[in-house]
Amino acid sequence: MRLRNKPWAKEYIEDNCDLVIPNPQQYKGKWNELFGNDHPIHIEVGTGKGQFIIGMAEQNPTINYIGIELFESVIVEALKKLKETNLENVRLLNINANDLTEIFSKNEINCVYLNFSDPWPKSRHEKRRLTYASFLKKYEEILVEEGEIHFKTDNQGLFEYSLKSFSQYGLLLKFLSLDLHNSDFEGNVMTEYEEKFSAKGQPIFRVEAKYQNVK
Amino acid sequence: MRLRNKPWAKEYIEDNCDLVIPNPQQYKGKWNELFGNDHPIHIEVGTGKGQFIIGMAEQNPTINYIGIELFESVIVEALKKLKETNLENVRLLNINANDLTEIFSKNEINCVYLNFSDPWPKSRHEKRRLTYASFLKKYEEILVEEGEIHFKTDNQGLFEYSLKSFSQYGLLLKFLSLDLHNSDFEGNVMTEYEEKFSAKGQPIFRVEAKYQNVK
Repeated sequence: MRLRNKPWAKEYIEDNCDLVIPNPQQYKGKWNELFGNDHPIHIEVGTGKGQFIIGMAEQNPTINYIGIELFESVIVEALKKLKETNLENVRLLNINANDLTEIFSKNEINCVYLNFSDPWPKSRHEKRRLTYASFLKKYEEILVEEGEIHFKTDNQGLFEYSLKSFSQYGLLLKFLSLDLHNSDFEGNVMTEYEEKFSAKGQPIFRVEAKYQNVK
Repeated sequence: MRLRNKPWAKEYIEDNCDLVIPNPQQYKGKWNELFGNDHPIHIEVGTGKGQFIIGMAEQNPTINYIGIELFESVIVEALKKLKETNLENVRLLNINANDLTEIFSKNEINCVYLNFSDPWPKSRHEKRRLTYASFLKKYEEILVEEGEIHFKTDNQGLFEYSLKSFSQYGLLLKFLSLDLHNSDFEGNVMTEYEEKFSAKGQPIFRVEAKYQNVK
């Protein structure tokens, strides 16, 4: 994603601290209190401009969604979109995915979404891929038992890598499509990137992987 | 595959009982004696016209190969090809894959190849797919510990199904390509069908899955 310098971003985020939560560590183990209900919480790691998480939140009002995005200049786009809605089941966090376990407790999250994550194609960057084993461990440390990862991408290399990584970590492959838009999967919410990319006719890959009690 | 009636097939198979082994049950646990060495044994389930197994045997003289094919009218084509070679590390069996465990003992086989198996796309035929759980159990009963299945297909639905089936059975995905002919996999031996099909430019899917001690 192209990053533009946006000098107003920092202030805009601070002015909307009800939606982009500052110091999110303070809610570790207490996110349900912030949402004011006991609905399950799903997070998207790398939420980009927010179309996916906002669409999901509209589709599923009894699920709470937290979008995590590292870049200030990107999360402000998601914030703008969110402010145009009246959704009460979405929050955004301007944090690094490495810090997930400082923000959430074990059993606090039901599902992790990864959408069109950076493929980091070079072998020496493997550890940066969001489906690398160390990230799968972080997700496990915040998910409920039998929590799930829902992952989609157009990147063949990253998808091949991720299926192997899931398998080697002991995750169970539940749903799998090598051409999501021509599959029988219903209720797909597209990301901005997915809309542009799939218009070219190339396939989108998608998998749901579940943590298992016995590994 | 189109099946033609070949009235001469039965006799031709009987005349070549050194290559198409009759009553293979007699060799259960003793296949190494038949080959006259202790080389690992790999089998192909659904060997068709034999191009794959003969090519593999030429490439790997210290591995013994057994091709299994249900249809008389098809296995005779593999037999013809085999007779044109001087290979001593290939045998053929005209049996049903359901009978594998009557033919081989535990630890007798190192690798099972499945190439372009019948996809049986209808849900009610799931049990006939060679990657269905009951077949994975049969392969496990004849394979060594950490034995492997090497599977390739052009059929997207069967590949999606098979990855889930492998995962649910507890197999580890080792190698995975969603476009074999444009991958860095070396030493691929094409089947007759693969040669024809891939000339159309459509991708071939391939996976190596390994049985694990702890399931």
